[in-house]
Amino acid sequence: MDLELASRLSRPNSTRIVLCVLDGLGGLQRRSTGRSELEQARTPNLDRLAQDSETGLSVPVGAGITPGSGPGHLALFGYDPLQYDIGRGVLEATGIGFPLEPTDVAARGNFCTLDAAGNITDRRAGRVATEHAAGLVERLRQIHLPRAQVFVEPVREHRFVAVLRGDGLDDAVSGTDPQITGVPPLEARAMHEGSGPTAILVNEFVRQAGEILAGEPQANGLMLRGFSKYPALPQFPEVWKLRAAALAVYPMYRGLAQLGGMEPLACPGGLEEQLDVLKRHWDDFDFFFVHYKKTDAAGEDGDFERKCRALEEFDQWLPSLLALQPDVLVITGDHSTPALLAAHSWHPVPFLLHSNYCRKGDSGAFNETECRRGVLGVFPAVDTTPLAMAHALRMEKYGA
Amino acid sequence: MDLELASRLSRPNSTRIVLCVLDGLGGLQRRSTGRSELEQARTPNLDRLAQDSETGLSVPVGAGITPGSGPGHLALFGYDPLQYDIGRGVLEATGIGFPLEPTDVAARGNFCTLDAAGNITDRRAGRVATEHAAGLVERLRQIHLPRAQVFVEPVREHRFVAVLRGDGLDDAVSGTDPQITGVPPLEARAMHEGSGPTAILVNEFVRQAGEILAGEPQANGLMLRGFSKYPALPQFPEVWKLRAAALAVYPMYRGLAQLGGMEPLACPGGLEEQLDVLKRHWDDFDFFFVHYKKTDAAGEDGDFERKCRALEEFDQWLPSLLALQPDVLVITGDHSTPALLAAHSWHPVPFLLHSNYCRKGDSGAFNETECRRGVLGVFPAVDTTPLAMAHALRMEKYGA
Repeated sequence: MDLELASRLSRPNSTRIVLCVLDGLGGLQRRSTGRSELEQARTPNLDRLAQDSETGLSVPVGAGITPGSGPGHLALFGYDPLQYDIGRGVLEATGIGFPLEPTDVAARGNFCTLDAAGNITDRRAGRVATEHAAGLVERLRQIHLPRAQVFVEPVREHRFVAVLRGDGLDDAVSGTDPQITGVPPLEARAMHEGSGPTAILVNEFVRQAGEILAGEPQANGLMLRGFSKYPALPQFPEVWKLRAAALAVYPMYRGLAQLGGMEPLACPGGLEEQLDVLKRHWDDFDFFFVHYKKTDAAGEDGDFERKCRALEEFDQWLPSLLALQPDVLVITGDHSTPALLAAHSWHPVPFLLHSNYCRKGDSGAFNETECRRGVLGVFPAVDTTPLAMAHALRMEKYGA
Repeated sequence: MDLELASRLSRPNSTRIVLCVLDGLGGLQRRSTGRSELEQARTPNLDRLAQDSETGLSVPVGAGITPGSGPGHLALFGYDPLQYDIGRGVLEATGIGFPLEPTDVAARGNFCTLDAAGNITDRRAGRVATEHAAGLVERLRQIHLPRAQVFVEPVREHRFVAVLRGDGLDDAVSGTDPQITGVPPLEARAMHEGSGPTAILVNEFVRQAGEILAGEPQANGLMLRGFSKYPALPQFPEVWKLRAAALAVYPMYRGLAQLGGMEPLACPGGLEEQLDVLKRHWDDFDFFFVHYKKTDAAGEDGDFERKCRALEEFDQWLPSLLALQPDVLVITGDHSTPALLAAHSWHPVPFLLHSNYCRKGDSGAFNETECRRGVLGVFPAVDTTPLAMAHALRMEKYGA
């Protein structure tokens, strides 16, 4: 839905909407058993709920398009992910709560290990300890660039954020991560004319960093990618007239929600803590985005069984969420991460919406096969928020 | 998918994709039996493959829109057929390998039979023999127009191509074929101001042709239609990073593929020869478009039984194609041609995609009814190439 139309039609009321995103939810059937992760996992609570919900398969971005986490979540929040593009640098910076300014250029950084010839031997510097990396980041703050301020912030293990602040910076700069080992990091390149000066600054940053890190045993190099500026997203709470909160373990997902104007609530403890936070803030917000990462992590590792267990863990938690009696509950994913592919994929994602105003479908359980038989069919993920809003009776009639 | 995005996301690898287009594949159930052509034909190989594939019904252009061959194929190749419009003249010219220049205006020509009063008695001049028509075309080359070169090329039987080359030619000219007999051919008319001079040239061409053909017993007249210029199609091999070949019996389909930059491989012998060519060139290309015409020809003739036999012939051939083990195999049509209508129709087209990364669906066979139960649902045909690319693991992730 066009967001101007959404602002025109949305209206506040006293309902509560919960959107549970099981990251990388969708899977693929194993040849040996003919069953997907969701089909193999024992998920009686999800299955029972699916029988009493509107179900379908949602397409995150478009046919054949494998989404990253950014586009996958944006779609669920109602932003057309082809229209609103968020760079990795901005995502990471927002995820750690860095106060980005509109003209800043942010990048995601990785420490890496270089050999004597300057070739990369480990793209993650042996996943250097978070505390040690924080010390290295502290030292990188010595870097001085002409006509630009530099900010470097630690994230976790080998990951950090670098932000350039100054006039006329442009984010159309290619990353320096070659994505393979045995070669040196790439030079940053301007991807159009206007970004030439920024590319020069980036390469100078890398040069000075090399001198600073030279004596390090593991993290003696770094790579930068995802150069990006803050996107101008229409704010979710204004568009939909919802007080919205984001409950996530990982900073990136809170950061993403925050870009849309949601209030980030850290829950490092996972599902149990997310439930506590939900209860504590049940009266403070109208919309709760609950992010669950374990499904994706297992899928990315190609670990079918662990993904099943992650699904079962969520299923066991579900009754305590239902006890809060949200008016609208959506359970879906931001994309598929089939263990078979050990990666994100383009496959549509199982989707369930429960409210008092659901049509009955043919889904006997919550999985890829059964959701396809649901009343929503195969539909764009960007319809998720409008559908949730409608079921919450938070949308005015269109036209007289 | 937007083709700029497609170029950004596509990547090469060593997989092979085969797209089989059964022209006019979709049908309609006969009242007497309740079965469509696909439902009546014995197609055990297609049925078995459908059970192990992602299936659906693809919509060539849009709800209620009956596509010609051009739009139907363009959609399958990933071009939005409402955005990219290819005239019949250009199609025919390209199909016979005529080297069209960007400013040329091409038209499809038909010889016809006129009575003494100048009224059409046979719109195809009794399907005059190809050899005889070639002689007539040779004589038409005497035509001289002011400020424009004229090219006339035979195609097959009563069909030929006429091309005007010169400065300031405009293709917005109406055809001269009234589509009925008992009336004279129409005057060519300018469809906007700028095409006035071209319309005058066309009418002068027709006048001189009338003098040249006057003594002919059958082909004593001609009609021109589909005036068109070369379209600027983004090139398929560049957009998708595929070496692409087109295997078709009829020149028009090779021509169509060639407009998109595919390499045309003539297979006048039909399926057996197409298989030989596939085998011979299996290492030379990544993408093979295989065109099968008999289904459409039978449908156009309203011959239900013959369309069934054409489907059975393809089905018998299928195992030899499967033996080549393409990584991705798509079997669909460019549109429906139900024998019941004896014409192209708007009905969605049965679709099957087979790869190692398919979700299981509910299709027990390959036909209109069973494909609707497939995981892809009813979807736009323009998604075909993106889906095939994704299943070939030839698409990068979108966004971080």
